[in-house]
Amino acid sequence: MYTCNKDRIQNKIETFATFGDAGNGGITRFSLSDEALQARAEFVKRMKAVGVETVTDDMANMYATLPGTEPGLPRIVMASHCDSVRNGGNYDGILGVISAMEVVETIAIEKIPHRHPITAMIWTNEEGSLYPPAMMSSGVVCGKFLKDKILASKSPEGKTFGEALEQSGYAGDEANRLNPNDYMAMLELHIEQGPVLEAEKKEIGVVVGVLGMVNYRIRTYGQSDHAGTTPMAYRRDALLAAASALKYLHTELDKLDSNLVYTTGNIICHPNIHTVIPDHVDFSLDARHQNPEVIKQVVEVIKNMPKEFDKCEVKYQEAWARKTVNFNEELVGLVQKSADAFGYTSKKMYSGAGHDAQYVADMIPTTMIFVPSKDGHSHCELEFTSVEECWRGINVLLQTVLEVDKK
Amino acid sequence: MYTCNKDRIQNKIETFATFGDAGNGGITRFSLSDEALQARAEFVKRMKAVGVETVTDDMANMYATLPGTEPGLPRIVMASHCDSVRNGGNYDGILGVISAMEVVETIAIEKIPHRHPITAMIWTNEEGSLYPPAMMSSGVVCGKFLKDKILASKSPEGKTFGEALEQSGYAGDEANRLNPNDYMAMLELHIEQGPVLEAEKKEIGVVVGVLGMVNYRIRTYGQSDHAGTTPMAYRRDALLAAASALKYLHTELDKLDSNLVYTTGNIICHPNIHTVIPDHVDFSLDARHQNPEVIKQVVEVIKNMPKEFDKCEVKYQEAWARKTVNFNEELVGLVQKSADAFGYTSKKMYSGAGHDAQYVADMIPTTMIFVPSKDGHSHCELEFTSVEECWRGINVLLQTVLEVDKK
Repeated sequence: MYTCNKDRIQNKIETFATFGDAGNGGITRFSLSDEALQARAEFVKRMKAVGVETVTDDMANMYATLPGTEPGLPRIVMASHCDSVRNGGNYDGILGVISAMEVVETIAIEKIPHRHPITAMIWTNEEGSLYPPAMMSSGVVCGKFLKDKILASKSPEGKTFGEALEQSGYAGDEANRLNPNDYMAMLELHIEQGPVLEAEKKEIGVVVGVLGMVNYRIRTYGQSDHAGTTPMAYRRDALLAAASALKYLHTELDKLDSNLVYTTGNIICHPNIHTVIPDHVDFSLDARHQNPEVIKQVVEVIKNMPKEFDKCEVKYQEAWARKTVNFNEELVGLVQKSADAFGYTSKKMYSGAGHDAQYVADMIPTTMIFVPSKDGHSHCELEFTSVEECWRGINVLLQTVLEVDKK
Repeated sequence: MYTCNKDRIQNKIETFATFGDAGNGGITRFSLSDEALQARAEFVKRMKAVGVETVTDDMANMYATLPGTEPGLPRIVMASHCDSVRNGGNYDGILGVISAMEVVETIAIEKIPHRHPITAMIWTNEEGSLYPPAMMSSGVVCGKFLKDKILASKSPEGKTFGEALEQSGYAGDEANRLNPNDYMAMLELHIEQGPVLEAEKKEIGVVVGVLGMVNYRIRTYGQSDHAGTTPMAYRRDALLAAASALKYLHTELDKLDSNLVYTTGNIICHPNIHTVIPDHVDFSLDARHQNPEVIKQVVEVIKNMPKEFDKCEVKYQEAWARKTVNFNEELVGLVQKSADAFGYTSKKMYSGAGHDAQYVADMIPTTMIFVPSKDGHSHCELEFTSVEECWRGINVLLQTVLEVDKK
């Protein structure tokens, strides 16, 4: 069985970590930023070094395709993203790109026989850090988002994604987009971004799907008054009410299924001045579970929440929801078979995070491979996966590509 | 006894409400903004209309002085500010300026005999909305702040107060500053900004001082991880911990003296993204009471707070503190005498809010007069005091000036 090259993997991890290095062991590399363009140029350079040219589509998604031996066969694509959240780590997304490059390099350098063309790919703006939403370009390519709306998406500074796309020089031809005629399968290797593989001492996560989720905004309405002149009895403090609502929701949601994950990560307080009683506060509630029944229970908790906390009205609104996505069973089976062939320990699991693969799964057969995340940390500078662990995952990716190639 | 003119007062309130009208019955009029310069020009124009010229000092504080009949006597000054918070109301600050103008106009038009020069004054940037700190210019003039540091204060957009001052065209001569040789007393009429006068059906607040206060920052430290991939048991959520700390502090502080007012008005959550578990959160705690013993009890509550909430470390830091300021007893007595002379109902009270008068009080004899705030609202668009209530307060201001003039 073929394996990839550990030194080459380490070199790629270290090189890409310099593009957007934020000085604390992690990166800030927003999509289409100068730092992201450095990463893209490195991708083009390294693919060219093994004789593979890169083309882009109209969303600046990048495709580096190593031809196969049999003409007219569809491509096998390995893809992830090279953008990050603010103060993110050196593995989320970029490890999938590094893995795709490494597999192409290994096949090219070792001259491994393969019938189908094999593509290493970068999806533009998976994180949506600067230009929302997340998974923007896979969403456009797979028909989840209208392109015109996406081009109008604005950064906090008011620049549109369309402007950034044009300035980047990476916008290419729509005809180059991933599509169900020219592509037969997509594989995405990613860090787990959670603590489960490490805690259970598993080397490979065989991903069976992406968790369904709901996202709500919870809002409290008080009255803005002066901090020094309003006796306590007269106050309606929207931040106190938000703290009460947040504590209430945590307490009630903790009673549901233990596999439920939920997060209150964003809070907006108005006017947010230390000398003024807050008049309205708005916080997010993100909840994920593979079973839609549990998601329904979450929604029931929200709907049954008291209408008032601390004399402030409380309202809620669904921001968005997605159903659980199940990956292609045959591909999941080939990942499992490849991991077993190497003798790696593995675990079938759902992804709690969203990935471009979940949109692609509705278009062509798709699946994912997870490698462990140290202490489960992700979207932060502490993100870490050892080269050894990356190498195992990339070996499974290579082997799975070669298995798919037999079809 | 002399009284002021209700129609003239109403006209001034309505006119100044147009400078920075934010469209919802209130104003946004940051110091030295175009809107604030419109208000300053209106002040100059109206004072000129009764034969009074306006000069400015080096902090752009404005002084319109009606001469007295006896040469060489010090001035009696009535002062407040014309800047507002974002989406503030039509009374905070500007009513004190309107009152000062109205008293000067009444004395000039009615030719009321007076020995001392009488000055209507505007303090620059009391709110500190764009350029912190609050009470910036009275702080410089009264020796509380170094001028160079204040000039370097930056707006969120990075413009310095010094640049804004120069561009305004209102920076004048340092020799024009309020000082203890040329000024014998300062009076500031202001809205109460609280609900007490209205609730107790009192027409005039005879202000005896400004409450002492402490301001703390409370910080919680968790771990940033991915919202979808981190099982609940592995989480250290700094926003959940902040909600717990905030609830704890409210519960404990509610047990202290019922006159204590405290506010948690500002919260900063990092990274504040709905898909990321917050890793640190920082909120403000502002507490005010006339009795330093109660302030000490507040600090004890903070210091005795648990060191950890929800597996997150909690720390605190004093941001600043100020002692209770007591106003000049003789002036307070003259305000009381004047209110009584008109037969107005009144209440002796502390100001919970900070005012320029509290800095001036350390330099020359100073006091304040409060008029009721409808429903206690202030620093918001609902701020309201009827013309009738304003008129009563301004009559007391006029009468107090004439009483001081006898000295």
